[in-house]
Amino acid sequence: MRTPERVVTAGADLLADALAAQAVEVTRVDWRPPMPGTEDDLVAVAADPRRRDANARALAAVLDVTAHLVDVAPASELLGLQRGEFLHAGPPIAWERASGPLRGALLGGAALEGLVDDPDDAVALFEDGRSVSLEPCHHRGAVGPMAGVVTPSMWMFVLEDPATGRRTHCTLNEGLGKVLRYGAYSPDVLARLRWLGGVLGPLLQRAVRTVRDTAGPVDVTGILTQMLQMGDEAHNRNRAGTLMLLRDLSPAMVGSGYDADDVAEALRFVGGNDHFFLNLAMPACKLALDAARGTEGSTMVVAMARNGTDFGIQVAGTGDEWFTGPAQVADGLYLGDYGPDDANPDIGDSAITETAGLGGFAMATAPAIVRFVGGTVPDALATTQRMHEITLGDNPRWSVPVLDFRGVPTGIDVTKVCRTGILPQINTGMAGRVAGVGQVGAGLVTPPAEIFPQALTRLAQLARQER
Amino acid sequence: MRTPERVVTAGADLLADALAAQAVEVTRVDWRPPMPGTEDDLVAVAADPRRRDANARALAAVLDVTAHLVDVAPASELLGLQRGEFLHAGPPIAWERASGPLRGALLGGAALEGLVDDPDDAVALFEDGRSVSLEPCHHRGAVGPMAGVVTPSMWMFVLEDPATGRRTHCTLNEGLGKVLRYGAYSPDVLARLRWLGGVLGPLLQRAVRTVRDTAGPVDVTGILTQMLQMGDEAHNRNRAGTLMLLRDLSPAMVGSGYDADDVAEALRFVGGNDHFFLNLAMPACKLALDAARGTEGSTMVVAMARNGTDFGIQVAGTGDEWFTGPAQVADGLYLGDYGPDDANPDIGDSAITETAGLGGFAMATAPAIVRFVGGTVPDALATTQRMHEITLGDNPRWSVPVLDFRGVPTGIDVTKVCRTGILPQINTGMAGRVAGVGQVGAGLVTPPAEIFPQALTRLAQLARQER
Repeated sequence: MRTPERVVTAGADLLADALAAQAVEVTRVDWRPPMPGTEDDLVAVAADPRRRDANARALAAVLDVTAHLVDVAPASELLGLQRGEFLHAGPPIAWERASGPLRGALLGGAALEGLVDDPDDAVALFEDGRSVSLEPCHHRGAVGPMAGVVTPSMWMFVLEDPATGRRTHCTLNEGLGKVLRYGAYSPDVLARLRWLGGVLGPLLQRAVRTVRDTAGPVDVTGILTQMLQMGDEAHNRNRAGTLMLLRDLSPAMVGSGYDADDVAEALRFVGGNDHFFLNLAMPACKLALDAARGTEGSTMVVAMARNGTDFGIQVAGTGDEWFTGPAQVADGLYLGDYGPDDANPDIGDSAITETAGLGGFAMATAPAIVRFVGGTVPDALATTQRMHEITLGDNPRWSVPVLDFRGVPTGIDVTKVCRTGILPQINTGMAGRVAGVGQVGAGLVTPPAEIFPQALTRLAQLARQER
Repeated sequence: MRTPERVVTAGADLLADALAAQAVEVTRVDWRPPMPGTEDDLVAVAADPRRRDANARALAAVLDVTAHLVDVAPASELLGLQRGEFLHAGPPIAWERASGPLRGALLGGAALEGLVDDPDDAVALFEDGRSVSLEPCHHRGAVGPMAGVVTPSMWMFVLEDPATGRRTHCTLNEGLGKVLRYGAYSPDVLARLRWLGGVLGPLLQRAVRTVRDTAGPVDVTGILTQMLQMGDEAHNRNRAGTLMLLRDLSPAMVGSGYDADDVAEALRFVGGNDHFFLNLAMPACKLALDAARGTEGSTMVVAMARNGTDFGIQVAGTGDEWFTGPAQVADGLYLGDYGPDDANPDIGDSAITETAGLGGFAMATAPAIVRFVGGTVPDALATTQRMHEITLGDNPRWSVPVLDFRGVPTGIDVTKVCRTGILPQINTGMAGRVAGVGQVGAGLVTPPAEIFPQALTRLAQLARQER
């Protein structure tokens, strides 16, 4: 370099300018009025002597967790899921209020389990309700993308925190387009699900167990670290993560006793599905956040989840209570001829990634994602910066090179959201609102604002009881 | 998003500020005095009526090329390389002036070919010179990283431009550390080379041919497009590229007739070597740049290459002439206890990546690389911006998301370098200066300034002859 000092300075100015611009942004944001009607509750929660320490412990607990991939097996075995039991994404909901994509996925799931031959015949089963039951994934140690329907025969990844033995679970990703989790349930969707259970699941089980017992389990948290240096934000870009998973498992998939054609097909399927790793990123985030559940006095969000009708959050200091409001429709880019009228409101447990500092919170590290979810590159950079305003800290394990390796914003603080009015930014796939359609696009969305004051009110009640 | 208009504006300001800062930089740069003594030649070349059109054609020719991976085979077969013939990186050089790492690689190559049993015994062969010959890779349609030594038994990738059938070649990457291309030649280095030739090469050959004849050949240019969205700059970060190559080839590696243990070992070796794809990126860049060779009147650089002693460039308008000066020592980060005194001057054909707009020219898209080659994130951003000042255009195929998807700076213009004094920025591995040591670090380096006025003088002579 001819005159490195000058160049370095120019570069530093560039960053300094950006940071200065950001600082101005920060200041303006801090001056915003709190959300209407939250003043008294904010005062009550601020006066809670447990709060500061509880939030520090909650954040530390989340940051301490590492997620290892230790097994792959059917949901019946892992979760004790019985015939007629259906898990779904988001907070609790009954068939009557379920949206199109959730209904479509339930119908397909019923056919997959042999409860009916024709998925449409299952409508009667769900309307009757005596032989079937619905329960959130989150209540059974699991997370599900989009509709998030889990049935007993579906194979799931098992993630474990080696320090505590705690586990979380998620199904195998089906790919994009016409897939069950987007509400499609045509014969080809069911055929793919049967291949996932009959071929890919058992293959992955042997590979995951072999790797676990020889080299040591795949470190999902570590792969997430690398992904953030490779343009993935681990919600709607999981391309590098998927490739690293393949790298780690493929040598164990070619050993003797495997059918070569099945292995080749499995490698092609996973390698051709850039979203495959999402179903590992999600339970890794839940595993981390679950470590903070039940931290009394903490105002940190431990789950954001949507069932296609309601958007719900759970908070560390309020036990298993859900605070819910109407799910919003995302603003983004549409596939083919689809448009805003075709999109269902926000759906899926995948906002667990944002809850843990990834996805929308990490968009600065994945600027190419604006070609998938919309927005501009400066938006993507600004979004990550803005999310630092409503979070408790940075995650040093998951750093963003272009922001000078600053850790992702982690631990959404209900009080900061209420005080600034800044809502968590989620990027998401969009399901068609009619059952059976599948994916129609991808975009950007926020939770309904009112759920944060709701949670704050409950935190304030608990704080007042402590006095 | 609560107030998207404001956020977008803040973001746009952020980028606008950055671009404004860059524009100031640009202006200042343009006002620099030209390199001393180049004024008359700059006038002569500027007056050459062929120049503008020749440069446009040269750049268009480079941007038109796509590189497909069509075969893997031994150098003896592909290049007709005979026993005793050795290719090496950089411009032509004799044993007497060869640096430590080039000598080390030649000694190891002689042992690999069975010319001697003990590599050290080959010193006499090279000093004598009657039974051996040295020739640049570039003279035989090949490129070689670091020492770049190619011997007849080494297996090479074959890249082809489907529009013209032109081909380029490069050996299989050995990994980092103690490897032949960094000048190491211990028994384990030779054992690895024998495994590359005996196991990996034939396995890749069958996989590459199967993929070529079924799905169609691996599109190396297309993988490079993706890599630039995944934190690779394709010189010292090739992690995503390596994983995409594995993704594309692995299904064809598990078919019947393959030894499962060999396949598993091959998958582990490639997956464990983040630099494996470099040996595809380099010949892809040469394939593109060779399209501009011999464009009379063009001032575009078509090759930058170093042999560890000399740094040489070739220019589109000056045929196969090399313009050379002393190779510089890189400034960077060292492995273990190594320091600047251990480093050999710049070596390798890998600066072909910078010549094509990748590597140091694309560092803005790979900010994590500063942890490998040194410097800061703002440096990385500023470097790509600065390289736009000495290049003829942008490559729309290879775009940088964080710079709002601007294409990488492509086509180094000798006149722009001389007029501004801005030298091409190269990032590079550093070999130990003593034969046998191997890699000692990685860093940043530029060509010796004087080779650009040298090339300019020749261009001016040719321009004056045209009048």
